[in-house]
Amino acid sequence: MPALPPAEIGAPFFDIDTPALVIDLDAMERNMALLAARVKALGVRLRPHAKTHKSAIIAAKQVALGAVGICCQKVAEAEALAAGGVRDILVSNEVVGGRKLARLAALARQIKIGVCVDHLDQVALLNEAARQAGSRIDVLIEIDVGGRRCGIAPGPLAVTFAAEIARCANLRFGGLQAYHGRAQHLRTPAERQAAIGAAQRGVADTVAHLKAAGFACDTIGGAGTGTFLLEGGSGVWNELQAGSYIFMDADYARNVSDEGGNAPRFEHALFVLATVMSATSTEQVVVDAGHKALSNDSGFPDVWQRPGLAYQRPSDEHGIITVAAGAQPPAWGNKLLLVPGHCDPTVNLHDWYVGVRDFGTPHARVETLWPVDARGALG
Amino acid sequence: MPALPPAEIGAPFFDIDTPALVIDLDAMERNMALLAARVKALGVRLRPHAKTHKSAIIAAKQVALGAVGICCQKVAEAEALAAGGVRDILVSNEVVGGRKLARLAALARQIKIGVCVDHLDQVALLNEAARQAGSRIDVLIEIDVGGRRCGIAPGPLAVTFAAEIARCANLRFGGLQAYHGRAQHLRTPAERQAAIGAAQRGVADTVAHLKAAGFACDTIGGAGTGTFLLEGGSGVWNELQAGSYIFMDADYARNVSDEGGNAPRFEHALFVLATVMSATSTEQVVVDAGHKALSNDSGFPDVWQRPGLAYQRPSDEHGIITVAAGAQPPAWGNKLLLVPGHCDPTVNLHDWYVGVRDFGTPHARVETLWPVDARGALG
Repeated sequence: MPALPPAEIGAPFFDIDTPALVIDLDAMERNMALLAARVKALGVRLRPHAKTHKSAIIAAKQVALGAVGICCQKVAEAEALAAGGVRDILVSNEVVGGRKLARLAALARQIKIGVCVDHLDQVALLNEAARQAGSRIDVLIEIDVGGRRCGIAPGPLAVTFAAEIARCANLRFGGLQAYHGRAQHLRTPAERQAAIGAAQRGVADTVAHLKAAGFACDTIGGAGTGTFLLEGGSGVWNELQAGSYIFMDADYARNVSDEGGNAPRFEHALFVLATVMSATSTEQVVVDAGHKALSNDSGFPDVWQRPGLAYQRPSDEHGIITVAAGAQPPAWGNKLLLVPGHCDPTVNLHDWYVGVRDFGTPHARVETLWPVDARGALG
Repeated sequence: MPALPPAEIGAPFFDIDTPALVIDLDAMERNMALLAARVKALGVRLRPHAKTHKSAIIAAKQVALGAVGICCQKVAEAEALAAGGVRDILVSNEVVGGRKLARLAALARQIKIGVCVDHLDQVALLNEAARQAGSRIDVLIEIDVGGRRCGIAPGPLAVTFAAEIARCANLRFGGLQAYHGRAQHLRTPAERQAAIGAAQRGVADTVAHLKAAGFACDTIGGAGTGTFLLEGGSGVWNELQAGSYIFMDADYARNVSDEGGNAPRFEHALFVLATVMSATSTEQVVVDAGHKALSNDSGFPDVWQRPGLAYQRPSDEHGIITVAAGAQPPAWGNKLLLVPGHCDPTVNLHDWYVGVRDFGTPHARVETLWPVDARGALG
């Protein structure tokens, strides 16, 4: 069953119970407006990735700012977000298995659905599922542009796929999915430029092969928060899929952020609020947020605006806050804000967002409680 | 909202959709019977830790095998398990914050509730919450026996706490909480013996101080799956809190398991079933279970009974399965069983257990679908 929300709407900030997933609403809104403006200036479409936030309410805000729709990774995410009102969803991932295909095809009767393929057998299976459901599905061919995960090799092979898709009455060839996830977290601008430059050559080559065979790509999708200026300015990609920009996280903050001095500065807008639940030492205290409240796969959280404090040695329900020499140890019962190391899997651990207005001021108040609609949507 | 279950009761094993949290019911039942028998032979009580399974149904099975009650770490877990019928719960952790104390005290009107303290101010706050609720709460003093997390130092300080608890009309002094979490995962028997030996001296010293001051400890609780024979045979601890034994995980399997050749062999009983969703290379394939389906905090999962396959480089929704030279690469669409690196936070990512009977045989069938009742119970 979903957990109780950790706060009431209208409550002052420090009445929020812990651990809680807290949004600085003003910072999130600035991040959303900034990204939307930058993508618009690039002259390309925006289809933000909802695997970050898993929220139909946030997706609606992205669409209101000009997004053509959203991406997600799982059929169950698409179902949850469609139930919340999203009308155009690309599952930017391969969907394998009869039950999931039937659900995807059923959803395509209600809203516009796209999905990716990198295996020829999948094309016929998708078509059959859509035929049985009486729906039509857009299909993008995923190409591996350097992530070494899913996707076929760039080049002429895509023509075989496009021809197969074009033969299927319940499918529509939608273009290419060309996402380079690893490039997002390369630390220096030069590394990111090199990675996206190599990806760009592969995409352009694939598009040329498809064009020569008579296949036009409506969508050439990809890019994330760490590199979207590169894909968006390449003249090749036409639909950007950034997601993390709304919240940012401690790992993204470790990127050296400068594409020619031009990169937008997104703000940390997502935090896990934790309480000091044990303080028996001057060298460390213990907070009530461990692996079950924070995903530590990309490093531990930062302690927000508390120099000398570091989050260490998490266990399931505890984190140790070490106190550097000369730093002020937090008192028993105090609350600390933690900047998650990796937002997406951290969000997935919580049932509720606590949206705070005037964050960081004495007037900070709980303005909203939003469900994490697609929390646990694995299938 | 909770996700749909990934299977139907009665379905054959390979109709289970993925990713799914799968229990080998026979192995789990053998683990439960084995631990119960070994603890009984030690002449001490068993209070298994439900933070592993978060399931009222599994807790009821543990009680049916002789457990006096269960432990959990969070008030919200206690609420979820009490709602499922558990009647005696120790929150083996400190509870800090007015909202949580009020909920804990309310729960103590319905069932037997114990909780731990390591701060004197907390004693009065607990008593006031119980007074307002009209309930009584058992209070254990947590001592730090080597885990360097919560707990006061062993020795005479506990007398001050016991006296304070004894003065409170709505509290009852219940004894000591003396859990050494880090000792569970020390790799060699000698290391584990040394750690629990040191803990034992601290516990015995604390008990002696309390006794001299007129305070008897009904409960001296602690121990986990990696060390329970040591605490249980010490003559000091009288209530064991092992949890992981029901499922085991890949990290526990890395322990050298031999306390004098006497250690019980628990079996892997919990798996994440995943599908090969992309297979574009002979050196690796991609499965549909990443950080959101598996907690990788204690190492990556093992691939069950598939020599030469290794799970690597997880991202949010993907895991890479590398194929060693000479090993058979799994085909596109195949399903693989993964042994989680760490069961407890992996369970917390799923809404459903799929309980399979005759696991690993051609007759394997879905016998049960159990909700993970306390999934996401953070507060």
